[in-house]
Amino acid sequence: MKNFEFHNPTKIYFGTETTKKLGTLLKDVGKRVLLVYGRSSIKKIGLYSTVIDQLEAANIAYFELSGVKPNPRIETVRKGAKMCKENNIDVVLGVGGGSVIDCSKGIALGAKYDGDPWDIYMRKETPKAALPVVSILTLSATGTEMNGNSVITNLKEKKKKGFGSILSYPVFSILDPTHTYSVSKHQTGCGIVDSLTHVYEFYFSQDDNYLNNRICESIMKTVIHYGPIALKDPNNYEARSNLMFSSTLALNGLTGFGKDFDGYNHTTEHVLSAYWDIAHGDGLAITAPHWMSYILDKTTVDKFYEFAVNVWGIKPGKDRMKVANQGIRKVFDFYESLGMPLYLKDVNITDPDLDLIAEEAVTNNALGKFKVLTKQDIKNILKNAL
Amino acid sequence: MKNFEFHNPTKIYFGTETTKKLGTLLKDVGKRVLLVYGRSSIKKIGLYSTVIDQLEAANIAYFELSGVKPNPRIETVRKGAKMCKENNIDVVLGVGGGSVIDCSKGIALGAKYDGDPWDIYMRKETPKAALPVVSILTLSATGTEMNGNSVITNLKEKKKKGFGSILSYPVFSILDPTHTYSVSKHQTGCGIVDSLTHVYEFYFSQDDNYLNNRICESIMKTVIHYGPIALKDPNNYEARSNLMFSSTLALNGLTGFGKDFDGYNHTTEHVLSAYWDIAHGDGLAITAPHWMSYILDKTTVDKFYEFAVNVWGIKPGKDRMKVANQGIRKVFDFYESLGMPLYLKDVNITDPDLDLIAEEAVTNNALGKFKVLTKQDIKNILKNAL
Repeated sequence: MKNFEFHNPTKIYFGTETTKKLGTLLKDVGKRVLLVYGRSSIKKIGLYSTVIDQLEAANIAYFELSGVKPNPRIETVRKGAKMCKENNIDVVLGVGGGSVIDCSKGIALGAKYDGDPWDIYMRKETPKAALPVVSILTLSATGTEMNGNSVITNLKEKKKKGFGSILSYPVFSILDPTHTYSVSKHQTGCGIVDSLTHVYEFYFSQDDNYLNNRICESIMKTVIHYGPIALKDPNNYEARSNLMFSSTLALNGLTGFGKDFDGYNHTTEHVLSAYWDIAHGDGLAITAPHWMSYILDKTTVDKFYEFAVNVWGIKPGKDRMKVANQGIRKVFDFYESLGMPLYLKDVNITDPDLDLIAEEAVTNNALGKFKVLTKQDIKNILKNAL
Repeated sequence: MKNFEFHNPTKIYFGTETTKKLGTLLKDVGKRVLLVYGRSSIKKIGLYSTVIDQLEAANIAYFELSGVKPNPRIETVRKGAKMCKENNIDVVLGVGGGSVIDCSKGIALGAKYDGDPWDIYMRKETPKAALPVVSILTLSATGTEMNGNSVITNLKEKKKKGFGSILSYPVFSILDPTHTYSVSKHQTGCGIVDSLTHVYEFYFSQDDNYLNNRICESIMKTVIHYGPIALKDPNNYEARSNLMFSSTLALNGLTGFGKDFDGYNHTTEHVLSAYWDIAHGDGLAITAPHWMSYILDKTTVDKFYEFAVNVWGIKPGKDRMKVANQGIRKVFDFYESLGMPLYLKDVNITDPDLDLIAEEAVTNNALGKFKVLTKQDIKNILKNAL
């Protein structure tokens, strides 16, 4: 097992009716709140009014920033940071999915920085402080509710950039699975794919780490078990609660201890989203299966064999390559059964400039750790996904 | 999944050479340290001198309290708390196994309390503050390095009592698996049994929680896989590192989310230790298998079936009771293979007063959640373990 550090200070309140604790809990964090959310969905499910009631009952002053979009924009971050400065905001409350919470983190960083918040995402500046962030999650997907990461998109510059910091861990996050009952089939599918991909990026590693492997498999098995149930029966509490905490654990440090991270999927997807503004889960559904097929060889077969047998229940066999291939086939089939796209054309990306995508994805002409990929490799993988 | 809260602020530094970070890290926590340890083992492995070098290089003043025993005594806690007050100690550093770290937590609580620290363990007083605790772990077992629990023994009153508080989470813990290379076969076995029992106490629950079940199984499988390897080859890094982080995860909140806790094993063992001062792991090796055998019935068979198949690899079958029994048999066999005691007579407890043990273990005449046990049940289980 490789050396590692683990630290996750976020407090989780999980379950039904937990939003009713918001006022009491938030009072200890701040008195002037910037409430950040997307469009109408939190109003439709009644969450918006519960939040407002809580803020008012606790005598917390609040300012609202709505309209956060998927692939949250740097413009919204800039606007929110400005609002924080002008109104002496002392805590940012994100109510929504990963985009809203990521945007809230960007705002909280920007509020304590004099320059353009985009500097932080472009690594021109290391932030020294941030406002505290609190989240109420309405979508099981990114894990942002219990980590220090945020991903912000600059469509003008065609860049989607992530930034991680201990400053960005939410002080607390409220996770009520009933808030995800109204999530559409497509968004549920996107969340399932995002959670699985977070696990892949540590599970598929050349590092030997038995405990980590078994925990990664636990999370994948849970997501695979309950994903189809949630699609069929959106109000199934067991399915929604298992998916919700699985997505949290998939990227809160628990899947990553003592392992190398392989960034192929997220890095490549970020390029696709930055250029075509596609849903993150759609992009990952396209990148991952073709990546697996492409990198399966004698240096990776043992891991894919383990994946096939332990996660997908493929019968063990002497022909390890065959079993490994059957496991990867299961990924294609599973994504298809969720109604997710498997090819770029499925999300209307036709005739893309593969040179450009590959160029944007690589650093020093390479990408990935489990299997180090060249620009040509990336082009080959994407060609298989056209 | 039942509602739950999850919060674990302890920072973990895991791996080789991590003790060399101690001075730098500790400076941010305090300037005057009480160094708590047991007898000679940390000197034998060179850890003591590394720690002292680190403290001196970082210009941290230190005071020493050595001689902490297994089943750490309230007298040592009192002595340490007094030393803290007299010397303006601002951080307690425990270097050792669970007993040393638990004792350090007791001292840290006592240092900020005017009365007798035993009041805290007897629930006469709720502590409002504690000194920060830092730990360097040398034994994989209790999980105390990443939780807020401590267990202290009062032999005069024949009581062993636990107390949990957010105040008692170590600020950080250093986990270097090589520090456990010299742990004896018996102590290694005790640690394996302790880790497994922590998992049992949440895994065996009437609550349905798929994700939790799979994670619990991951940890148990890892411990069962690497336990025998560590016994045979004490310097096997993969075995020691997997056992070490498994024991941490077994009681850091990860195994307990959304589940009822069943306290039969630890509660009963605490009575045995308080009366006969036996090793905690020995006590648990005696309580758990007989508990499983006794409570197996139609209300528990499904869980034991799952345990048999998923953890012990028993072949699924139509006769669920038979499969469940085979799984429990595996527990007896595994403990025996580790050289652990299975009966009270194996630890020289002969002709014990079963009435008294049962009376001490129950609260309102009952104990346990997975299967609620009466005093008579406890006596029956112990009779089977004579």
